[in-house]
Amino acid sequence: MPDPRVVIVGATGAVGRVALQVIEERRFPLASLRVCATPRSYGKLLPFRGQDLVVEEANAALFAGCDLAFISASTAASRELGRLAAGEGCVVIDDSSAYRMEPDVPLVVPEINGADVDWHKGILSIPNCSTTPLVMALWPLHRINPVKRITVATYQSVSGTGAAAMAELDAQARDILDGKVPTVETYPHQIAFNVLPQVDAFLESGYTVEEQKMVDETRKIMHAPEIAISATCVRVPVPVSHSEAVHVEFERPMGPGEARALMSDFPGLVVLDDPANSSYPMPVDATGKDDVFVGRIRADASKEGGLAMWVVSDNLRKGAATNAIQIAEEIVKRGAWLRAPL
Amino acid sequence: MPDPRVVIVGATGAVGRVALQVIEERRFPLASLRVCATPRSYGKLLPFRGQDLVVEEANAALFAGCDLAFISASTAASRELGRLAAGEGCVVIDDSSAYRMEPDVPLVVPEINGADVDWHKGILSIPNCSTTPLVMALWPLHRINPVKRITVATYQSVSGTGAAAMAELDAQARDILDGKVPTVETYPHQIAFNVLPQVDAFLESGYTVEEQKMVDETRKIMHAPEIAISATCVRVPVPVSHSEAVHVEFERPMGPGEARALMSDFPGLVVLDDPANSSYPMPVDATGKDDVFVGRIRADASKEGGLAMWVVSDNLRKGAATNAIQIAEEIVKRGAWLRAPL
Repeated sequence: MPDPRVVIVGATGAVGRVALQVIEERRFPLASLRVCATPRSYGKLLPFRGQDLVVEEANAALFAGCDLAFISASTAASRELGRLAAGEGCVVIDDSSAYRMEPDVPLVVPEINGADVDWHKGILSIPNCSTTPLVMALWPLHRINPVKRITVATYQSVSGTGAAAMAELDAQARDILDGKVPTVETYPHQIAFNVLPQVDAFLESGYTVEEQKMVDETRKIMHAPEIAISATCVRVPVPVSHSEAVHVEFERPMGPGEARALMSDFPGLVVLDDPANSSYPMPVDATGKDDVFVGRIRADASKEGGLAMWVVSDNLRKGAATNAIQIAEEIVKRGAWLRAPL
Repeated sequence: MPDPRVVIVGATGAVGRVALQVIEERRFPLASLRVCATPRSYGKLLPFRGQDLVVEEANAALFAGCDLAFISASTAASRELGRLAAGEGCVVIDDSSAYRMEPDVPLVVPEINGADVDWHKGILSIPNCSTTPLVMALWPLHRINPVKRITVATYQSVSGTGAAAMAELDAQARDILDGKVPTVETYPHQIAFNVLPQVDAFLESGYTVEEQKMVDETRKIMHAPEIAISATCVRVPVPVSHSEAVHVEFERPMGPGEARALMSDFPGLVVLDDPANSSYPMPVDATGKDDVFVGRIRADASKEGGLAMWVVSDNLRKGAATNAIQIAEEIVKRGAWLRAPL
C-alpha cells in the first residue's frame, strides 16, 4: 500500500501549525504534504522536515490529487471544503463541528472507537477539544462499569478559539498590567484576569453549544446514548490546555483505587495524582504533550460509589491535531483511506 | 445604647483594607475605630473618613477598650488574638477558619442565619469566601425545597490568599509576557496563565481543606447536616471575585423559572441571567460590589428536577469584609455585643 498524499487545510492556524509538528514528530508516512489556508496566506512558506511548504488555495483540483485531507478551519469552511474534498475521493478528517453528529460520519478517538473508521463514507470527524479529555478519562472505567451520569465544569484555554484569541489574551493582560482599558474583540467580554461562563452560543435549553457538544459527542464516541451529562463550559485566561472538574456515577460503585489502576493502564492517559507533593495535572505542564492527564481522583463525597477527578489535556494536541493524525494512522493501518468517495 | 468601639485586626491586609471601605460606605455607627496589624506596619497611617488612623499593636489593653473586634489575619494569629480579645470582653468577628466549626461559635451569613448571633459566647465567625456565595444562592431555594446534594467546581481568585498573591499574579504575568521565567513563591506552582486544582492543604480523603470547609460550613450555616456536598476548589489567575459552577438536587423537582423568582426576591442576591445578550455574572463585574450574583440558571440535563447555575461574588466583600460588617450590624441591632465575656 503506498503512503498517502496529505493536505492540511487551515495550516497557518493554531491547530494547523501543531498538526505539522505532530506529523513530523510521529514520522507519519507521507507520499506528499500540501498546505492550504485563507487567501491572505497564499504563497506564505511553512517549514516542514527541513523544507518549505507553500500555502496554496484549497480547491477541487488540489483535493483530487490528495488521499487524506485534515481540515481545521471555521465550521462554515469545513462544511464547504469537506464535501468538496470527499467528492474528489480525498478522505477528510475534519476538526470542526460541521459533520460530527451526522450518522454516516464516524466521530473517533482512536484509543476508544478506532474501529469506527471502518465505516466512514469519505468524512471522519474529531471530537471537540473539551470532549476528548473527558472520554479519554472515563472510557477505561466505563468499559468495566458503565457510566450513568456525568457533571463537569471546564476551564478552557483561549487557543480553543484560535490564534487571534491567544494574541488578545496577551494584549489585554499587558494593557491591564499597564493600567489601560483592554480592547475586547474575540469574546463578548474581557478574558484576561477574568473567567467567562460562555463558550460558543446559547441554546434554548440555557446550555451553550459547547456544553451540548460534550453531551452529544461523549454519547456517540462511547456508543452510550443513555449516559446523563450536564456541563458548564467556562473560558479561563490560559493560553493552551483545557482542564475539567468531573463528577461521575457508575452502574456499580467504583473506588478511587480501582479507577486509578484502570486509568494507569490505558494508552494515552497519564495518572498524575500525588496530592501530598502537590502533584496533579495543570495546563502549564500538559501543554505540548500528547497525553491526557488525570489526577485528584477521589470518592465523590456527595454520592456513594461515585468519583470526582480533574482532567487536563493540550487542546491543540490530543484535543485536535494529535487525535486527527492518530485517526489518519488508524485509517492507514486499516487501509480505510482507499475507500470509494461519497 | 451607645455606638460600639471597634478595632480591625489585620487592617493593612487585602480584606482589612476593604473592611475600612465597607464601614465607611455603610456608615456603620462607631464610637471609635482603631486599627492593628503586624509589627512591620506599626505607626503606618490608614485614611478613614477624612482622618488618619495609626496602626497599633493588638494586645489585651487595646481589646479591653473595645466592644467589637474584626480579625482578618492568619489562622494562627486569629487563634491567639480571638481568645485574648473575647477574654477582655470584646466581641470578636473572626474571618479565619480558627473557630468556625466550634459548637459555641456562630458561623453567620446574616441574610440566612442572622438569629445565630444571639447565642454567641464572645466569638463569631464568618464563613470561608467560597462558602458564602454558595449558601447565598441556595438558601432561598432550600427553605422552600430542601437541598439534598450539591456538586460544585470553583474558580477562585488569588486575593483569597492575600495581597502578596495578588502582587505575584501581576509579576508572573508580566514576566511571562516578557518571555522570562516567572518566580513562584505563594503557591506550589505558577498561577499566571495557569489554573491550580489545589486551594489549601490536602486531607486523607483526597479533598483539600478548602473543599471540606465548603461541606462543613454549608451544613452549619444552613442548619442542614444531612446535605451531601462534593467540591473541587481551583485557583484561577483572577485578582478578585470567586466563581462557582454548581449542580444541585432537591427533595422535590425545582425548575429554573421558580428558582430564578425565589433568588430574585432574596436580599443580597442578584440574578443576572440573560444568555441571549451574553449577560451572566463574571469576576470583573462582581468586584467591588456587595451582592452575590447568580446566572446560567438551567435545568440539570443529567438529573430530572435538578438545577445547574453559576455564582460569582467579590471574595473580599460579601466573601469577607461585607459579611463581617453585616454581622456587626446584626449584633448591634440585637444588642448582642453587650454580652458577658467568655
